[in-house]
Amino acid sequence: MHTIDLNCDLGESYGRFGIGNDAEIMPFISSCNIACGYHGGDPLTIKKTIALALKHQVKIGAHPSFPDLQGFGRRNMFIPPEELLAMMQYQIGAMKSMVEMQGGQLHHVKPHGALYNMAADDLDIAQVIVNAVQSVDEKLSLVGPAENPMAEIAHQHRVSFIAECFADRRYTSDLKLVNRNQPDAMIDDPQEAVQQVLDIVLHQQVKTIDGSIKKMKAQTVCIHGDQPQAVAFAKQLHSALVGHGVEIAAVNNG
Amino acid sequence: MHTIDLNCDLGESYGRFGIGNDAEIMPFISSCNIACGYHGGDPLTIKKTIALALKHQVKIGAHPSFPDLQGFGRRNMFIPPEELLAMMQYQIGAMKSMVEMQGGQLHHVKPHGALYNMAADDLDIAQVIVNAVQSVDEKLSLVGPAENPMAEIAHQHRVSFIAECFADRRYTSDLKLVNRNQPDAMIDDPQEAVQQVLDIVLHQQVKTIDGSIKKMKAQTVCIHGDQPQAVAFAKQLHSALVGHGVEIAAVNNG
Amino acid sequence: MHTIDLNCDLGESYGRFGIGNDAEIMPFISSCNIACGYHGGDPLTIKKTIALALKHQVKIGAHPSFPDLQGFGRRNMFIPPEELLAMMQYQIGAMKSMVEMQGGQLHHVKPHGALYNMAADDLDIAQVIVNAVQSVDEKLSLVGPAENPMAEIAHQHRVSFIAECFADRRYTSDLKLVNRNQPDAMIDDPQEAVQQVLDIVLHQQVKTIDGSIKKMKAQTVCIHGDQPQAVAFAKQLHSALVGHGVEIAAVNNG
Amino acid sequence: MHTIDLNCDLGESYGRFGIGNDAEIMPFISSCNIACGYHGGDPLTIKKTIALALKHQVKIGAHPSFPDLQGFGRRNMFIPPEELLAMMQYQIGAMKSMVEMQGGQLHHVKPHGALYNMAADDLDIAQVIVNAVQSVDEKLSLVGPAENPMAEIAHQHRVSFIAECFADRRYTSDLKLVNRNQPDAMIDDPQEAVQQVLDIVLHQQVKTIDGSIKKMKAQTVCIHGDQPQAVAFAKQLHSALVGHGVEIAAVNNG
Repeated sequence: MHTIDLNCDLGESYGRFGIGNDAEIMPFISSCNIACGYHGGDPLTIKKTIALALKHQVKIGAHPSFPDLQGFGRRNMFIPPEELLAMMQYQIGAMKSMVEMQGGQLHHVKPHGALYNMAADDLDIAQVIVNAVQSVDEKLSLVGPAENPMAEIAHQHRVSFIAECFADRRYTSDLKLVNRNQPDAMIDDPQEAVQQVLDIVLHQQVKTIDGSIKKMKAQTVCIHGDQPQAVAFAKQLHSALVGHGVEIAAVNNG
Repeated sequence: MHTIDLNCDLGESYGRFGIGNDAEIMPFISSCNIACGYHGGDPLTIKKTIALALKHQVKIGAHPSFPDLQGFGRRNMFIPPEELLAMMQYQIGAMKSMVEMQGGQLHHVKPHGALYNMAADDLDIAQVIVNAVQSVDEKLSLVGPAENPMAEIAHQHRVSFIAECFADRRYTSDLKLVNRNQPDAMIDDPQEAVQQVLDIVLHQQVKTIDGSIKKMKAQTVCIHGDQPQAVAFAKQLHSALVGHGVEIAAVNNG
Repeated sequence: MHTIDLNCDLGESYGRFGIGNDAEIMPFISSCNIACGYHGGDPLTIKKTIALALKHQVKIGAHPSFPDLQGFGRRNMFIPPEELLAMMQYQIGAMKSMVEMQGGQLHHVKPHGALYNMAADDLDIAQVIVNAVQSVDEKLSLVGPAENPMAEIAHQHRVSFIAECFADRRYTSDLKLVNRNQPDAMIDDPQEAVQQVLDIVLHQQVKTIDGSIKKMKAQTVCIHGDQPQAVAFAKQLHSALVGHGVEIAAVNNG
Repeated sequence: MHTIDLNCDLGESYGRFGIGNDAEIMPFISSCNIACGYHGGDPLTIKKTIALALKHQVKIGAHPSFPDLQGFGRRNMFIPPEELLAMMQYQIGAMKSMVEMQGGQLHHVKPHGALYNMAADDLDIAQVIVNAVQSVDEKLSLVGPAENPMAEIAHQHRVSFIAECFADRRYTSDLKLVNRNQPDAMIDDPQEAVQQVLDIVLHQQVKTIDGSIKKMKAQTVCIHGDQPQAVAFAKQLHSALVGHGVEIAAVNNG
């Protein structure tokens, strides 16, 4: 039997600036990544999102970012490793405490936006992230891109790694995400996005942008929560997976 | 034999913006309050200040603030209780994790600047602070002004309270701090400041601005770290206390 | 014949954090107040909002705020007058340059949120705002609450004052806005809100929360742009006013 | 007779976070670049620095930066051109208004830190900066590195360009600044720094890090204001130049 985790980035609102459909999407996911305040997520939003996740028994991850509210953490920034490490530790540490305050347990860390993308291409940044995760709590898992060297760095440091694929993003033939500024980067057709997930979950393969079929192993699927059709798509993907006998569940830590 | 804690606000630098003489003042204090990022204190500064405190066996407290870097947390702000509570929890939680990451233990919480002053005058704000301290870790102490109702609120919630007095600030006859915008608010003469501390520590009394003598019990003395003569004064006060047979030590938690 | 200005707060989005329905509401208003970056409004949002206003021949005002993105400028803050003056000058000055860069002309200044409310109750703050407006450009008008002493301070400094009333807020018997935390503060029924505006525009009177009828003279009506029904209401109010022969036009400066 | 401008980055303090020796250095410079709020420079600091410059008849430039207070504008950031343009316009526009408010006139624009360095290497960023300068006020000059293609882009858009060299930085053989993370990047010996300036001013040549002599034409020399010996060095350089019959004066606009 197949098992897959469905994850979503949540808690990205900031004060009166609302983003996402957190409450509506909760029933269809098994884990979430909560913004830590650097690209979104004021403390009250963090608390409420944690409460919501605990209520729905959705596993909670920290979603640290570059310090860039204006750019929503999507701009590449070059930060010395020592400073980046401290920033990650601060954000993950704050989230860990906020979760434990409500009786929960922090489950994983998933870097956000430009930090996620830069770490996928730069082993030094991946190393900083692995160090940050381990230093806060060695039981935490790290979520990163499937088929990426980040997994090895994590394993070398005995940090458990959760390989992530995307439902609505296309892949290059070397299994990188097609850059968002290219026309075909996104899969707009929900049916096609569902099919991509089914291919990966049931057959460990993905059709890349050039039409070739590649092996891909993933333990979690990222679905986006801030589009108008996000909730409908989450529901549709959830149903399709269950219809194919797939169990939807977070990855067990350790 | 008399015992007193000497505390100082540290880690208030922000990136390239340096404030204070943290390393120089460490040998003369027994506890410190580290800025959490809201009025000063970027993550790397926080880490380095924690490391310094651990090295000097100085007890570490969180020093949360209103979110006001531009005003250094010294401007009164009116924030709804639910939101203020979350802000305190976020800051204290981040500091707790950062301290534990380095093998230390968070000892206390002392609100900063305008938040400290507003809580001294407004029981609702004091209540929020007590709730925040307790929710993060019930073993944490709260540092607040001596002879203030905040102590009672803390005791009602079984949060241990550490009464603080100031070396270089004058007191009104009802034992409040003379407002900084009044001419005589500060004690500029180091000898007089030392005498005020000795009066409080040895005789549990203070001479107020109108010349009367009032009872005052305090367990910790705040010394300021960012003046040019801060280190010299810390040394002088430390010597005077030791010379009078006073033990300088942090308050034992629980 | 009666003339009234319809104004709306616009350009309050911040990076990816979207607020309001700026493009949709433009056809129904004659002036707008554009956020200057302190409570919302990143530079690109400012530019686009100015372009939109110029296209619709809507008069442009600066909408300066306390420096409080997290609280959307709605929290009372206590800032020394000299510093508040500089903050206002910076924001108004930036907006003036941004408008002139596109060939337009800045028309007025309207303080935002908590700053607007505090200035209505505190003559010292009103004075700072008048000084700020005059120092940037003496041809600028100041928008403030109708029947408020701010008008006199403005006149004393030869700053032209535009008295503002609200469509959807109730008034106390001394013509202050009912505090938002009271149950009846808002007029939820669009028909009633339209009627309040018609009463003020056609008869210079308003029915206060205790049922009494008071004289009120206003030259501009504030409509809110960020509610789901904001556009529909703007359209309805615009139609009702035109249907009663009222001309909708910005106040002529000087 | 030779003429050279001496410029210094000023007004970089932020609230209580002080940086630099602005008042002390003013007598020795002929132009300054004032931080606009993005890497330093709160509005009150900006106002006071402008007043100081006007008093000393020092020409005033805007010193815009990436939005990065925590990193003091020294981290490379990748911002889409349209957004970067708006950020520059906002900062330059604010500074222009603030200067005119005090009866002065903005003279030039010099990008700060990482933005300056990235623009020196990337023509697209240089282009955005030229566009920003021209759009705010076509009489403004742009200050950029000597012997860099930025000058040509400026000239193509009829923006007058002021070529800058550095007193205390070493040059590579292709006349770029030696990267700060290399050991020999800085000239620590004041006498050697003075000599480098004299070589450039009197002989239009510079000795590069590999010992070769290269032609270099510069109209302004940047001196740093935030080192402990900054004022002493400014005085020494000023004297040496005057002693060699060099006139110290800002570049005339247009």
